[in-house]
This record gives sequence, structure tokens and C-alpha cells, in this order.
Amino acid sequence: MARPMGSVRLKKTNPATLAVGVALCIFIIYFLIGPSTSDFSASRKATAAAHHLSPPTSPFRKPTGDKQKPPPVAHYNLNNVTTTPNPLENRENILLLTPMARFYQEYWDNILRLEYPHELITLGFILPRTKEGNDATRELQKRIALTQNQGPEKDRFKSIIILREDIDPPLTSQDEKERHKMENQKARRAAMAKARNSLLYSTLGPATSWILWLDADVVETPPTIIQDLASHDQAITVPNCFQRYWNEEKNEMDERPYDFNNWQDSPTALDLAKKMDPDDILLEGYAEMATFRTLMAYMSRENGRLHEEMPLDGVGGAALLVKADVHRDGAMFPPFAFYNLIETEGFAKMSKRLGWQPVGLPNYKVYHYNE
Amino acid sequence: MARPMGSVRLKKTNPATLAVGVALCIFIIYFLIGPSTSDFSASRKATAAAHHLSPPTSPFRKPTGDKQKPPPVAHYNLNNVTTTPNPLENRENILLLTPMARFYQEYWDNILRLEYPHELITLGFILPRTKEGNDATRELQKRIALTQNQGPEKDRFKSIIILREDIDPPLTSQDEKERHKMENQKARRAAMAKARNSLLYSTLGPATSWILWLDADVVETPPTIIQDLASHDQAITVPNCFQRYWNEEKNEMDERPYDFNNWQDSPTALDLAKKMDPDDILLEGYAEMATFRTLMAYMSRENGRLHEEMPLDGVGGAALLVKADVHRDGAMFPPFAFYNLIETEGFAKMSKRLGWQPVGLPNYKVYHYNE
Repeated sequence: MARPMGSVRLKKTNPATLAVGVALCIFIIYFLIGPSTSDFSASRKATAAAHHLSPPTSPFRKPTGDKQKPPPVAHYNLNNVTTTPNPLENRENILLLTPMARFYQEYWDNILRLEYPHELITLGFILPRTKEGNDATRELQKRIALTQNQGPEKDRFKSIIILREDIDPPLTSQDEKERHKMENQKARRAAMAKARNSLLYSTLGPATSWILWLDADVVETPPTIIQDLASHDQAITVPNCFQRYWNEEKNEMDERPYDFNNWQDSPTALDLAKKMDPDDILLEGYAEMATFRTLMAYMSRENGRLHEEMPLDGVGGAALLVKADVHRDGAMFPPFAFYNLIETEGFAKMSKRLGWQPVGLPNYKVYHYNE
Repeated sequence: MARPMGSVRLKKTNPATLAVGVALCIFIIYFLIGPSTSDFSASRKATAAAHHLSPPTSPFRKPTGDKQKPPPVAHYNLNNVTTTPNPLENRENILLLTPMARFYQEYWDNILRLEYPHELITLGFILPRTKEGNDATRELQKRIALTQNQGPEKDRFKSIIILREDIDPPLTSQDEKERHKMENQKARRAAMAKARNSLLYSTLGPATSWILWLDADVVETPPTIIQDLASHDQAITVPNCFQRYWNEEKNEMDERPYDFNNWQDSPTALDLAKKMDPDDILLEGYAEMATFRTLMAYMSRENGRLHEEMPLDGVGGAALLVKADVHRDGAMFPPFAFYNLIETEGFAKMSKRLGWQPVGLPNYKVYHYNE
């Protein structure tokens, strides 16, 4: 089997992941959308807290006046938090998480088209505190303000959280060739893993049912992606990430596989790992480290069943639907070598260690930006 | 060196950890305390969200009437979230987390005595959905209602979150001997680790600075424990967990070491681990598996400096102050063998892999319940 992904990967790997770095300090902006909350604070009756992050009353603060009454005790019983193959019917909360270093209008347009009720979707972003990150934050905030203030009500999301992350030492700008050198990958992916963990664990709430990871450069998904992936009722469901491009030969638009981190393990890769130092990591897509893993990127069939499943041992982060309990159990993105795997691939391994099997959908496609 | 902790451990290990089991479904009760929130929802100006879990407005919900205005966009800038040796001065938010299977009045009385401003402390509990867990939840709720409704205002905590966890299959009741058999420890501690992760990752918010882990059977700590431990400015700071008892020989109250999970590694333990299957775990406190680790439990000196530090390779969960960024980076309680360690001991190892060194305070004591 021809394995051209070495060069493909070198050219195409996600530039949006470049600048997200080590968590030192988190700066947060909440964009909050909601009618007056006085209906909540006055009520004592048990009612489901509608905000997955938040009991919708303000916290107790020391009274400044003398006449203030003791604060009420509100009691929210969230025993309707389910994670089912039919999230729509069960009004399940989705946490859509995106690490972002560059803002793509197409990304935003795509999530606006999601047909899952937006009032059940919380968006969470993490952006680096670099010039590039500042630019992206500004663009993102503009679009958010438009959508949440002026756009049609059906477009508005339940809430939006933006985390800003300091990077110390700041990652120096690297050209693409430099950036994809194998020896640079470990530090880059470790920083990315920490950013994912910070984002996840600062936003995951008790009422979250599903987490949809969607990279900032994924610009096209079916509008029913949440319902479609959830219908599999799997702990981790991964669509196949492709890229549209202009095929010079055919003189028409075409598509090609893009994300090579969705794979089934191979005896070769396992043998390689056995011989490695525990701190070293196996990377997919480098000719000098041929793993002969089965890549989902190449398993798509033209007339294949849309909902065909294959078990995966490694996953990418381009798009990923995860049951909240998987992350609650502790499955995170290891920023260190975990069974010689790191970040999203390490996450797949960790999930498996926790008893959750990731599943890929080779014929269910999402599309990556083409620079 | 005499190593009597085998038998000590067998008798004393935390019964509160018994029934907390595998996360299947999370049931949540919020006890929320707060004056009317209308001051927030009406305001658009940038202001720090005071609730670490929650933007203090309610989420966007589909309007039912026609005349409703578009919801406002609130903008919270939390760039004052710090984690410093002086949390009091910086008004840093503490998340106090306790897995609980039995309610001890002394535990509650002790946290009421904490001199850190209660309006900066969020309490999080996770209890099993068993008969024992139901009883504990009822007791806990009673005390919460008293404190938050009727007690002095200074006693009231910022917010309180109770998670209930389903256990499937239900853990059968075991007598103490059965419970502490080595072969049962792995499953028990894996369940405990998952409970800790669920609790942590459902409650950790973007504005949390510190997490104080405190077991439900820790009934006595210095009232300044938060300030004292934070003053070390360490990623993970662990006091020494002792137990008060009646010394028959001396005919007076005395104290003895209790938690043997705070240790420095030994060549023997590392050699043992090397020969083990990767799925096996090393346990501390069993005669049949002598590790010869240096136990902090035995490092306390009568006239020792209160704030003396020692680096640790394994930690227990009795009391543990953790910088939020450690957990945000992804340091969790592995429910699987991680370098042949599990739960809190695995957490220490994982933190070290992430570059954070746990530090123990041999002379700074907290006390465990004595049944």
C-alpha cells in the first residue's frame, strides 16, 4: 500500500494548533446570553439548572448593608442529565470545544449551520495570548457579538466562553518546515494537549452530556453532525477528516484524506514502541518512522455505508464526539508520552485503558480548510 | 526500621471511600446561595464573574412570547484569576472537594471553622447512590441547610454542589478484612479515582485558583490550613495525616501516623515495579509487598519546624492542596495502573510527568476520624 501521508502531513498539518501553548494563567471572557434571572433566584422549587456550567443565580457575597436578608437556598436537581443516542429528544447539553489560533469565517459559518438546537450548545474556545491569538480573538468576538446580539434567535448559542492562555516561554514563530520537524512535534503536541485539557476541564460542567471537539480549521461538517455521531451511542465517535482541493489533472474540485491520526494499531508500531524510551513518542505520518498502522483516512469507500464503524486505537482532534463521562472518568489529552503516544492519540489510549473504545466512521466526512 | 503500617493500614483505612463507585450517571443537587441576580443580568459592563462555576446570569432559552427582546451579551473578564502564596489578599477562589460515603459531624464542624473567607469557598461532594450514600446525603443536606439558611453569614459558603453517583454493578458490602485484601484494593481504588475525577472535572471552573481535597473522615485541621498550605506556593502541598487515640499505656490521649500514601520512592519499590505486569499496582502498607519507601507518616519530628518541606513521589488523598493549573493541565487520578500506581499515588506520578513536584509537610498535621 502506498503511504504518501508523510509528505501530505508535512504540508497540511493544522496551523491553528501552532501557537497554543503552556497554561500559565487563564484569562476569561464570558459572553453570556440570557433574559433576566430573577425568576430563578426567587424560586425555591427543584428545577433543572439550565446552564451546564452554572447554577443561574449569583453566588453568596458578603452583604454590605444591615438589612439584607439571608440568601435563599436554591435546590437544583439535575437528574435528567442523560447521554443517549437521541440527544435531541432528551434535550442533552453539548459542549463544543475549539482550540483556536486563527479565525476562519468558514468555521463560524459552519457551526452557525448546526441543526442541533443552539440553545443546548455551549461554545468554549482557548486562544493563545500572542499577536496572532489576539487577532483571532478580536475576529471571534466580532462574530459572536453579531450572532448573539443581532442574528436570528435560533442562531444564538446558550453561552460562550473564551479562555486566553499565556505562553511561557513564548513559542517562537516557526516556518512550516521547521514546525513539522519530528523533534519539534513533541513539544508542540504537549502544549496543544495542555491547552485542550485546560479548555475541557475549565468548561465541563455537571450537566454536560456530550463534548464535540472541533478544530478551528474544520470548515465543513454535515449540519446534523451532533445527532449523527451521537446516534452511534459510542463513547468516542470520530468522523473522517478530508480536504477539498482543486484537482489540476481532472480540472475539477476534488477531495483527499487529511487527518492521519485516526488509526488502528499495527504489530510494527507496537514493536517500535517496545524499543523506544518511555519518554519518546510515536508519530504518524513520518517516512522515517513507518508504522504500517491502518489509517482511517484511507478506509473511506465511495459507495460505503455512511454509518459504517471501525474501532480505532488512535484518534485525531479535528472532529470528535465524546460522552462527557469519558472525560469525567479522567480521560484527558496526555501532554507526556503515554504508552509512547501523546495528545489526541494518547487520549484514545487512555480512554481504552478506562474501558471506552473509540470508534471511527470512515465514510462520514468533515472537511479541513485548504490554505 | 520497623514497618508496622501493614497492620495499622489494615485497620484504619478510610471507610468513607468504600462505597463510592463507578460513574454511570451523575445526579446533581445544587445548593445555591445568593441575593437576587438582577443586578448582573441588567449590567453589561465588564465585571469579574464571582462564581467560579458560573456566569451569574441564566442561559439563553428560546423565548416563548413574541415581545421578548434579544438577550444581552454580558462580558466577564476574569483576568484576576491568580494562584499565589497569598490567596487571601488576592481573593482567590477555593474549590473544596470531598468524596463522601459517611457523614461525620466533626468533618462539617471542622470546615465551618475554616478561617479562609467562606464566600470564596465552593464545596463539592460526591456520594454513592447506595443506602449508606443516601443516609450521608440526607445528613449533609440538613447541615448545609442550617449553615446556609440560618447560621451566621460568615459561615456560609459561596456555593455547594452535590453529585450523586450510580454504581453499576453495585459494590457489595464487604467486611473490613475482605475490603482490605490486596486483590480488592485495585478495583476499590479505581472506583475511588473515577469518583474523584468526576467530582473534580464537573466542578472545576475557569475562576478556580486552588483545589483543597479533604476526605470526609478528616475531622480536624488547623483553621488556617488553606492559607498555610498555599503559603508554600507549591503545585501540590500535602499535610501529614495523623489520628488521635486513647493510649492505654500512657493513660492519656495520644496520636499516631495514619496516612501511609505520602512517600518518597525507594530502589526496592522501583525494582518491584519493573518486575510487575504493567497492569499491576504497587500498594503501600502491605507486609507481603514491602517497598521500603520513605513514608512521610514517620518523618514528623516533635520539635520540627511546622513548615518543613519534603519532596514526595506518592501522595494520599486525606488532605491535599493543589493549584488549579495542575488539574487543568490534565493531572487526574488514574483509575488504571499508571507506572504501577493508582489513584492519588498515580496522581502524584502524573503530576511529576507534567512537571509539577508534590511537596509534603511532615510536621503540619491534620487528623483522621477514629472509629
